[in-house]
This record gives sequence, structure tokens and C-alpha cells, in this order.
Amino acid sequence: MRNVRVRIAYDGSKFFGWQRQDGFESVQQSLEEAIESLTDQTVVVHGAGRTDTGVHSLGQVANFHLDTRLDDHALLRALNAHLDDGAAITALETCDHDFHARFHARGKRYLYRVVTGSVRPPFGDAYSAWVREPLDLERVRAAARRIEGTHDFAAFASAGSPRASTVRTVRAVRVIARREHFAIAVEGNGFLYNMVRAIAGTLIDVGRGRFTPEQVGEILASADRRRAGPTAPAEGLWLLRVLYPEPVLTGRVRGPRGAAGFFP
Amino acid sequence: MRNVRVRIAYDGSKFFGWQRQDGFESVQQSLEEAIESLTDQTVVVHGAGRTDTGVHSLGQVANFHLDTRLDDHALLRALNAHLDDGAAITALETCDHDFHARFHARGKRYLYRVVTGSVRPPFGDAYSAWVREPLDLERVRAAARRIEGTHDFAAFASAGSPRASTVRTVRAVRVIARREHFAIAVEGNGFLYNMVRAIAGTLIDVGRGRFTPEQVGEILASADRRRAGPTAPAEGLWLLRVLYPEPVLTGRVRGPRGAAGFFP
Repeated sequence: MRNVRVRIAYDGSKFFGWQRQDGFESVQQSLEEAIESLTDQTVVVHGAGRTDTGVHSLGQVANFHLDTRLDDHALLRALNAHLDDGAAITALETCDHDFHARFHARGKRYLYRVVTGSVRPPFGDAYSAWVREPLDLERVRAAARRIEGTHDFAAFASAGSPRASTVRTVRAVRVIARREHFAIAVEGNGFLYNMVRAIAGTLIDVGRGRFTPEQVGEILASADRRRAGPTAPAEGLWLLRVLYPEPVLTGRVRGPRGAAGFFP
Repeated sequence: MRNVRVRIAYDGSKFFGWQRQDGFESVQQSLEEAIESLTDQTVVVHGAGRTDTGVHSLGQVANFHLDTRLDDHALLRALNAHLDDGAAITALETCDHDFHARFHARGKRYLYRVVTGSVRPPFGDAYSAWVREPLDLERVRAAARRIEGTHDFAAFASAGSPRASTVRTVRAVRVIARREHFAIAVEGNGFLYNMVRAIAGTLIDVGRGRFTPEQVGEILASADRRRAGPTAPAEGLWLLRVLYPEPVLTGRVRGPRGAAGFFP
């Protein structure tokens, strides 16, 4: 039995999230079914993290145990031929038997994309959130600096699965803007449920003047979800990368293009 | 009664083409209904040309006669608020009473977009065609030069509405490529039914080695549709601009961004 890990990109508007659930086509199910139809083996695919319906991935990592004579190259090609439209494996490698995509992850990097303008953009509404008002970049950057660091992020977490602690470390929040395109990149050691979308919703509210950057520090300190901004919509969120103690999926066996080539 | 002309952008994957037809939501119908719900007037909107289901527009032009006290600015804003998602008026102006978007058009510019790669792109499949093989840019450019000029384009026209002549002038065919993104821009004084898609399908076949550039000249001379390449799929086609003898829609009353800001 080989332990195989993959990087998988998917269009969140075409699946009901990552996690398998009866009656709703998920990315996990699509990948498990691709493996089964290729090899006749029923496997469980372990993803680094769940993503909700509508949330996109350029860098989800998953692993599964499989018995096959196909080499890594051939396995990547064959699985992509079986995967549903809207998902593609962009890198694949056989790894240590012990590797587990979720348990070994040490962090994640997300991007939240916004398009601003008084008219709803006619194209690509599945790939960015739309905000009617212009956003003040410097205000958003000032607020972003208050989010960085180790904090109790209870004010930025939806009630979700139970967890021992709401303390997380956000290593960096970067804000990029070009004309009407606006993006917030967030890297951290782990995220509470809906935490990136709550951070994005709050920073958007700072950008349009509903909060001051100083208030973001107070909201964080309050640990009160009702004080922060709304959970920004799923379509703007992109899982860019999952981080591990060692470099993963850096080898030769990869799809024909980097993440940038897919970015709509 | 004012004669109003608009530039309208729309996502072809969200409508059943431009032209009104019973039971299928078209862009024309969406615009006519927006006007009616705003002004209680039933108008007929004249588009510069029909686009098929799946074909996108950044530059469709249309006109209609309307009695309203709203100035151009307010009319643009109000119509956008009533239009269906996936369509947006990007410029609007009151014009000569005689102007007719179709009869006065002197040409059109289209873009055909392709993404190449052995893996189907997981994102944006509504906005580009996918071609598995890499395309040889220099071969495509050599073939494109043979299409330019005044020719009988019968070899590149689907059987569609009857027309007096199949002679058209293609003023320019430009081919642009960056990594896996590939685009063919075509400008002409008029186009037969499916002509741009047939040109694109043929040039793609040149790029992947099924035709030589010389054969494209022979195909054109044959006037035989069966000899040319396939009609490339609708999702890759973008109507960029409609050309008139005089500049149109260059004034102040426009949506908040140029076409580039919308391009997915």
C-alpha cells in the first residue's frame, strides 16, 4: 500500500463543499469515486481541511492509501481523467506512510477576493465578492495589522464544531488592491470556523468606513462575535496553500501549470 | 421621445442569447423588462447583432425609444438596478432620433479565448474554450494573415439566416498568447452566422497541426464549409466592440469601470 498525497484545485461553485455528505456532490466524494473507478479500491481521502460550498481551492492537500502499479505521473493523469469537471489534481507524489494531510498541517494561506463598484459585475460572480462602495486601502491595512499575532479569535468565529481553544496565531494579513480588484491574503497556524470570512467581512467594513482600525482591536479583545463585521460570502474565499513542517508536492509530478495559470 | 443607446456587457452563460424568444430568458428581454418595470413603457430594444447562448459581450450596443424625465446618468443607474444579474449597462447616451444600432453598424470586433493544457481548467470554463494540445503561435499567425482581407467566407459560415452575399471584409486578425492563455481578435465589416467561431476552430486546428497555414487559403478558396475546422464552442467568444461611422458612447455617462475591469 502506498500513501499518496495530492494538491487539488476546485471551483467551489460546482460542489457542495469538500466533505462527503449523502446526496450532495462534494470534492472528497468526487476524488474517492475517481480512485474507485480507476482502481476498484474503496479508499478514504483525508483532506487538510474542509471548505464550505462556494469556497474555491488552488492548494487543498489530501492523502489516501492505495495499492496500484501506476507510477505517480500516470496516476495523476488517470485520476484527472476520472475527476468531475471543476476539480483538477495539480500535483501528486507518493509520501511517507505516516503522512496525514490534516494532522500534519502546520498552517494555511487563504485569499479573499473582492470586486468593488456601483454596478454588480456581470462576469465571474462565482469567484469574488462584490462590494458596492470603494474601499480605503490604508484603513484596511491599518486594521489588518491589529489582526496579526496570537489572539483569542472568538470574535471572528461562527459557532461550529466544538474546539478546545479559540486562540490562534495569524502570521500575516496582506492587503492588495488594483483599481476595482481588492484581495486580502491571510496566513495562520489554524483557523476557526468561518474565521477568514469573518476577518474579511470586518476588514471590508473598515474599508467602507463602518469601523475604525482601532475598533478592530477592541472587537478582537471583546471575544464577542456580534461586535465584528458579517461573515463575507463564500464565493470570495480561496484556499491557496496548506503548510507542512517539510516541503510537500514540490517535485516533478504535477499538472501542466501552476496555480497562477488557473486563476480566473 | 428620446432615442437612447447603450453599451451592455453580459455573461453569455446566464442567458439564452441576445434575442428575445418565448420561454427562454434572453438579454434583450431582460433589458426590455428592466425598461418596462422602470417606466411602464413597452419598448423594443434593437441590438447591433445577435449573440448565441454562451457568447459573452463586453461591447454590445443597443438602442430604444423612450419617454422619460430621467437624465442619462440617472437612467443608466436605474436600468442597472432593474437588469438581471449577469448583465450590466456600461455606458448610455441620448442620441440622434435616427440612430439604429444594427442598421448603422459598420463593423464588429470579437475576441476568441482559449486555455490550453492537458488538464481541463477547474475554473472559468464558461469564459474560455479548452484545448488539450499546445498551439503553435507562429503557425496560427501565418494562417491568420490568409484570413484577412475581402473574401467569400462561405467556407466559414454555418447555414443560418439567408443572406444576399457571403463576401465579407476581415480587417484584422490578431493572435495573442501568454503561457496557456491564447486569444484571437477578429475585426471585420460584418460576419456570417458562426463565422468567428469557424475561423477560431480552424485556426486552433492549424495551431495543433491538423492544417497547414497554406491549407487555410485553400479552404477559403473552396467556399466549402466541410473543409474548414469545427465551429469552436460558444463559451470562448466575446463581442468586444461594435463600430459605427461616428464615435459612440464615448461620453461621461458610463458605468464605473471600463471593459478591462470586468474581464474575468
